Parts: sequence; structure tokens; C-alpha cells
Amino acid sequence: MNAGHPTDAAATRGPLVMIAGGGDFPPQLAGILAAHGERPYIAALDGAADPAAFGDAADLRTYRLGQLGSLLEELRRRGIADIVMLGALPRPSFSSLRPEVSTLKYMPHFAKAFLGGDDHLLRGVVRFFELQGFRVHGPAEIAPEMTAPRGALGRRQASPEQRTELERGFALLAALSPFDVGQAAILADHRVVAIEAAEGTDAMIRRVADLVARGRLKIGKGDGFLVKVPKTGQDLRVDMPAIGPDTLRNMAEAGLSGIGVRAGAVLVGDRAALGRKADQLGLFVEGFPG
Amino acid sequence: MNAGHPTDAAATRGPLVMIAGGGDFPPQLAGILAAHGERPYIAALDGAADPAAFGDAADLRTYRLGQLGSLLEELRRRGIADIVMLGALPRPSFSSLRPEVSTLKYMPHFAKAFLGGDDHLLRGVVRFFELQGFRVHGPAEIAPEMTAPRGALGRRQASPEQRTELERGFALLAALSPFDVGQAAILADHRVVAIEAAEGTDAMIRRVADLVARGRLKIGKGDGFLVKVPKTGQDLRVDMPAIGPDTLRNMAEAGLSGIGVRAGAVLVGDRAALGRKADQLGLFVEGFPG
Repeated sequence: MNAGHPTDAAATRGPLVMIAGGGDFPPQLAGILAAHGERPYIAALDGAADPAAFGDAADLRTYRLGQLGSLLEELRRRGIADIVMLGALPRPSFSSLRPEVSTLKYMPHFAKAFLGGDDHLLRGVVRFFELQGFRVHGPAEIAPEMTAPRGALGRRQASPEQRTELERGFALLAALSPFDVGQAAILADHRVVAIEAAEGTDAMIRRVADLVARGRLKIGKGDGFLVKVPKTGQDLRVDMPAIGPDTLRNMAEAGLSGIGVRAGAVLVGDRAALGRKADQLGLFVEGFPG
Repeated sequence: MNAGHPTDAAATRGPLVMIAGGGDFPPQLAGILAAHGERPYIAALDGAADPAAFGDAADLRTYRLGQLGSLLEELRRRGIADIVMLGALPRPSFSSLRPEVSTLKYMPHFAKAFLGGDDHLLRGVVRFFELQGFRVHGPAEIAPEMTAPRGALGRRQASPEQRTELERGFALLAALSPFDVGQAAILADHRVVAIEAAEGTDAMIRRVADLVARGRLKIGKGDGFLVKVPKTGQDLRVDMPAIGPDTLRNMAEAGLSGIGVRAGAVLVGDRAALGRKADQLGLFVEGFPG
């Protein structure tokens, strides 16, 4: 391993498979690994990942969810025992789930996980691979440069007043943590106007935009902040909080001013690109120590 | 005052004006007062209150928001210094706000309150009347029988398991109170799936219904609970949490099982009627001590 490698993880693991969902993060991680001379096997999830985004040179195969048996056989054939999972999951369709014969035996495990909603499902998937003898790594461990650094990503920084509001937001999320909820919240008009639970960050931002549009909420210039951190106990290997260009666009449309995140614990993908997007939209994106 | 009067409040106050917004609560309060031989002056807010709902015998006049000056003159003419405000507020339209000459002088006070959104507005209205020498009473003080009692409103009661979930919900709302947010939350699937902030309880219930409809959340039979309590520091005189038949209908549509509220601190209107509605929809509605 060369000295420029982002973590020691590669030194203590063997060849890697990336189980890739949708969005920009999986190709970005592949690019970072390539820059360090590593070429992972990419299991692109059908209906979510775009194989073309990984380039022609990628060692890639597309799998339906029902082809888990084939995937396991291929990983064993290649001697791959290290997994990273990244990207938006497809909403499973009946056809994507249609199991191959070699997948049937694993169905009882997943049937139970599916009944519990998204969180249970992710935990079930990790447990499944671990029981099969694999090591599951988090994207932040493989490529820490994909997470929010300390300080501002773009040119703008939170003012002392804005920082006070962000700190209130972080304190709110910490108070929610014992209840296993509260990955994100929005503060505006000196109060908490939205708290994320099962709906997701984008839906929460759209809710605030809607309240503003209907005159239920006023957000002045320089006001309106998103805070986002992992929940205590959240498995950052498969369920890391993330922000991206869409988050920033939704924020700008809602008339919000900036984002405060926990440094090192929230995925941002391409830091420089997200900083440019923030500058373009007039937002600050800033990482704070935990 | 007769011995059957629900509170001592009437003994320590003079004749009452009810500033009445929309919904069933204002006519219910008028009915309760009538049963005790009290006939308040009713200032029905144009566009919100239905004058017919108060019956032909009511001492009622309809006021636009811009007719505040006329209302104050009438109250002074009648020697009324005690106010109760109840019911849904109209979204102020430009025409409803068009001030009479006698209202113009009060506009600067309200212009500031309006800029701050609903909460600020209510606080501004209370402050305004108090500065004008009025006493503002809460509906729960005037008619405690309109609040949730301890115990079940209908036939159904929370099971011990359901009660454990409700207690978790109450603890969550208590943890949020220092942040002046968290009047209600929904728990399902052994986790917190929605927390109310600026959007209101009905919007929160609909959000959960939507997550269920899109397969993002599973709610089993006997699962799914709404908890609702006042926030610490909430002015119960003008901003009391409330549940009503619409809340129950929305809950049933979302597949939820029951509601836990803080006894004495949440308006339910006609207890018996709401208990029958709960029975009909298969829900429990239960009040717990604070």
C-alpha cells in the first residue's frame, strides 16, 4: 500500500466488492479507489445503479435483489470477503425480488427483515453477510475524503448568530438520540420548524418549503438551517447520513441559508463539487466536531 | 353561582366574551356555559365561526379581523373585561384585515406579531388584550369538561404493551420541551416515525399515512400511536393542544391504533361524542396524568 492511502483499512482487508445502489456516491468511491490503484468488484443493483457511471474499465455485474445466491457464489469464487455498500436502494419490486433457485434458501432471513421497514432491512442485510462470513466496511472507513470535513465546504461560513442556531439544532438532535430518532432538523425564525423521523431529509425540507409557500412560516434572509448528524447507534457502515447536490437545491428552493453537519460522520461525496454547488446557491455547508 | 359550576373561575370573573373561531369547540363551550345559566357575548370571527352553530338565542356578532376597534368599543360599552378565545383561526385574507378607522391605531402592534408566524401572532394577541386591560382565560379554566379526563374516553384502553410505547412517546416529547417543540409524535413498529414541529398534527398523521401507502413503513394491527401534550411554556389560554373527530378519522385512515394525551391539558370538546367516535373507528383515546 502506498503512503497516500486514505486509511489503513485496505492494509487489513483483501479485495473488495462494492454493492452499489443509485446516485453519485458509488461511482465517486470507485474513482477514489482507482486513484489508489484498487479496482473493486462492483455488484450494481438492478434498477438503482447506473453501470455506465462506473466507466468501461469497471469490473462490474448487475444483480437483481433475487440474485443474491449468484452474487455470493461469485464472491466466493473470487475470494472476496470484504464488502462496502453504498448508494440509494431501489424500492424492491416483485420482479426484482423473484429469487433464483440458489437464492431461495436465504429468503426466510430477508422476509423477516422486509417486514420491519427500511431500518430493519439494512440491519438484516449486514447481519446476513456477517453470518455468511463477510466483513462489512463503511464508506467513511474506505474513503474518509467522502465525508464532511471540519469547517466550511465552500466560501460561505456560518456567522456567530447562525452558529448559535446550529448548536441549538445539534443539542436538539442529541436530546432525541436516546429515542433512536432525529437524524436531522430544520430551525428557522428562532424555533425548530421540522424534525426528521421516518420520512427522510428531502421530504422534511419539502415540508418546510410548503409551509413557507402557504404562509404558515416566514423565513428571513440569512435564516433557516438544516442540521444533520448520525443517530446514536446508527450503523454507519450501511446507513450513513448523507447530503448532496439535491439536498442543497431543495434547501435553496425552501429559502434556507445553510447546513451544519457532524464532521467525519456525514457523507458529502465530492467535497469540492459540493462546495462549488453551495457557493452557486448562496448556502453555507459546514462541518462541526462531535 | 350555583354549586354545580365546573370551576371557581366564574366567581372571580365578570361577564365573558368568547372570541370564536371555526370548528365545534366554540359552540360546545357556549352550550356548557348555557347549562350553567351563563350567556357570553360571542364575537364570531368572520370566515371561521359559523354563527348558526350557536343557535338563535346567542348574543352574537360577527367581526372581521379589521374590526378590532369596534369589538373593543362594544366590550367596553358592555363592561366586559374577561375574554376566552377558542376555535380554529381563519387564515387572514387582505379583505378580512382591511381595518376600520377605529382599528388603525392598533395596527403597528399586530403588524409585528404577524411577521412572526402563528405562535408569535397568538402571543401578540394575548399581550394586546392584556395591555388593553382585559383578562384572558383559557377554555380549560372556563370548562374543564372539554379536556381529556384521566383514563379512556371510549370502550378501548391501551394494553400494557401499548402503554409502554405511549410512555416512550411522552418521554420523547418531554425531552423536546426545552427546545420549545414537540407537541405530538407518532410511534409505530417500535420506533418514532413522526415528530410534529411547525406542520401541525393533521399534516403529521397524513405524512405517516403516506409513508404506509408508499411501502416505506409497516404498521401492524394494534400498532401505531399518537401522543399529544402541551409544550412546556405553551400558553394554554390561547393555544391548547386539541384532538377531535377529524384527528380520529385521520388516525384510522393511517392505520394507527390509539391516542395518548396529557389529562386535563388537551382539548377534546364533547368527551362522550369523541368516545363514541373512537369506539366506532376501533381506536383508544386515553388521558394520562402529567
